[in-house]
Amino acid sequence: MPAGAQTFTVYNHMLLPMRYTSSLDEYEALITGVTIWDVGAERQVEIQGPDAAALTQYLCTRDVSRIRPGQACYTFVCNHAGGILNDPVLLKLAEDHYWLSLADSDVLLWAQAIAAERGMDVAVREPDVSPLQVQGPKSGDLIGDVFGPDTRDQKYYNFVETELDGVPMVVARTGWSGEFGYEVFLRDGPKGTWLWDRLFAAGESHGVKPASPNQIRRIEGGILSYGTDMDQTVTPLELGFGRFVQFDGAEDFVGKAALLTQAARGIDRRLTGIRIGGDPVLSNSAHMDVQLDGRSVARLTSMVYSPRFDANLGFAFVELGCAAPGCELEIITSNGGLLGIAEAIPFVEPTKSI
Amino acid sequence: MPAGAQTFTVYNHMLLPMRYTSSLDEYEALITGVTIWDVGAERQVEIQGPDAAALTQYLCTRDVSRIRPGQACYTFVCNHAGGILNDPVLLKLAEDHYWLSLADSDVLLWAQAIAAERGMDVAVREPDVSPLQVQGPKSGDLIGDVFGPDTRDQKYYNFVETELDGVPMVVARTGWSGEFGYEVFLRDGPKGTWLWDRLFAAGESHGVKPASPNQIRRIEGGILSYGTDMDQTVTPLELGFGRFVQFDGAEDFVGKAALLTQAARGIDRRLTGIRIGGDPVLSNSAHMDVQLDGRSVARLTSMVYSPRFDANLGFAFVELGCAAPGCELEIITSNGGLLGIAEAIPFVEPTKSI
Repeated sequence: MPAGAQTFTVYNHMLLPMRYTSSLDEYEALITGVTIWDVGAERQVEIQGPDAAALTQYLCTRDVSRIRPGQACYTFVCNHAGGILNDPVLLKLAEDHYWLSLADSDVLLWAQAIAAERGMDVAVREPDVSPLQVQGPKSGDLIGDVFGPDTRDQKYYNFVETELDGVPMVVARTGWSGEFGYEVFLRDGPKGTWLWDRLFAAGESHGVKPASPNQIRRIEGGILSYGTDMDQTVTPLELGFGRFVQFDGAEDFVGKAALLTQAARGIDRRLTGIRIGGDPVLSNSAHMDVQLDGRSVARLTSMVYSPRFDANLGFAFVELGCAAPGCELEIITSNGGLLGIAEAIPFVEPTKSI
Repeated sequence: MPAGAQTFTVYNHMLLPMRYTSSLDEYEALITGVTIWDVGAERQVEIQGPDAAALTQYLCTRDVSRIRPGQACYTFVCNHAGGILNDPVLLKLAEDHYWLSLADSDVLLWAQAIAAERGMDVAVREPDVSPLQVQGPKSGDLIGDVFGPDTRDQKYYNFVETELDGVPMVVARTGWSGEFGYEVFLRDGPKGTWLWDRLFAAGESHGVKPASPNQIRRIEGGILSYGTDMDQTVTPLELGFGRFVQFDGAEDFVGKAALLTQAARGIDRRLTGIRIGGDPVLSNSAHMDVQLDGRSVARLTSMVYSPRFDANLGFAFVELGCAAPGCELEIITSNGGLLGIAEAIPFVEPTKSI
């Protein structure tokens, strides 16, 4: 890799660069400047045809009819038991044309099976789309220089279909960083290196740096990671995302009945942020036991040391009684117990003066 | 990796060791001795419950009712258009309990979607099962020493549920090598290193060696690789495997209608073996153009140099007129054209005297 990616993870059957310099260096670049991420492994499921709106609605927990062409939304794709299969960003390209921009799980065959079993008149396929993320407070400068002010100034969760030197792409005001940013969805795979070089050349005067999905910033911002913080065993209600489940509409969707039952009965556990004192805890600190009064109540799903908060920040599914902000928990590390305080997410920076 | 795996591929979201020594050294060990392969990435879809037989039949092209508990069969899992989603080995553990031992594609969500959409009373999950393959002419000696003569002497595509030092496993007379061999399905993941070491200790006197799925031997033997020789765009009929499609039964299965239509209309192309002269062609030789009278008729899906055949052997989907054994084709390499002769698969060794 000319840009020097040093580690990779396996994501949707592809290699995803996970570190160029260090997580801390990339964090600094992300929160102060502009970074570009090669997230080509973020695959799309394209749904197109007369029944595209009906299938998309049936697959998603949110009310899909509320977004117009050119708009996107974060949604859950659940199974029939209400368990989360994916948490994609849904892009509506036209009334009969949608993309599910996936997290790391295989929704393509899921969607194809449901469309076929329901006899829907719709094509469900993986299109030639390779995303890059352009993230950080200076990302607007870079995007403006390359794509112009209209693309730069679009609202959050909006997107435009555009071209760059005749190469088709979609530029969206979305991203997985917690910072201001964009996603550039390249619609011509072989042009990937060209686009990467083109954006780096344009970003040179803005100090652009290569980076990868940053764990520090995303945990600070309360951004969840599929396969890490949630999977099929978790429902949107347990994540605290009931507002993204369309209970009141007439439309059916996969998991609606199960989620209605859970909503009526009430949940037993929910995701909470936990702020943990002490020295920086190094990585692989997820899965650590979370105790209340000496009794195990959860395991951490994620944890990272945040230099900005000068604290370790993590997530855990805890009993409702422990989820209230301020609840004192104990995190069991190999060096003994650490005090953890339950806190709403996204975490709020304590050092800001009001 | 203590055993010294040097390269890996991504398979079903996991890392699969692909080379310990060299493909040639591993080939020699495989065809003369006994080799053990870590194929833990070969995942299972477990189907269990009152509707397990009905769902399994609906997912598979073969007549599932014809195998008894303790028997396995190679089958296709197709989509509704007859395209192949996977070519697993199906193991029938009980009348209401099956495993699909998968090739590299995501059938779990496919099967879960179909079961739920059809309202079937069945659990579909990924069980704690990690396979090893024990392959080669001396594999029976090793298996006999460890598991006893009954397990050693079982028939091809049979299996036994057994234990080793109290650890549950399934031992099957199956494998992906083209040689005599077994698969050991460990049912207790954390015991993987223990089982690996246990089998290597038992195999020491038989000269056991670590190896990986061997491309030379599998291509000689006409064993196909999902994602390489077939995918969703290919039907079992085009592979020449119409005998594994149950057209005459009363049972419906996914893709049956589409495959019946194709069978009635006739196929336009089919997979053929191609034996290619000249010097050994190095790897990455798949995808080379196959021409007939200067006209492109196919691309190679796989190709490898076989020392035993002293020839390059490959597969390609060609027009029916080129598929007849003896048809002369031209393979376009970077060093010019090579003569290729169409041949039935598995390839038959030419040096054997009759």
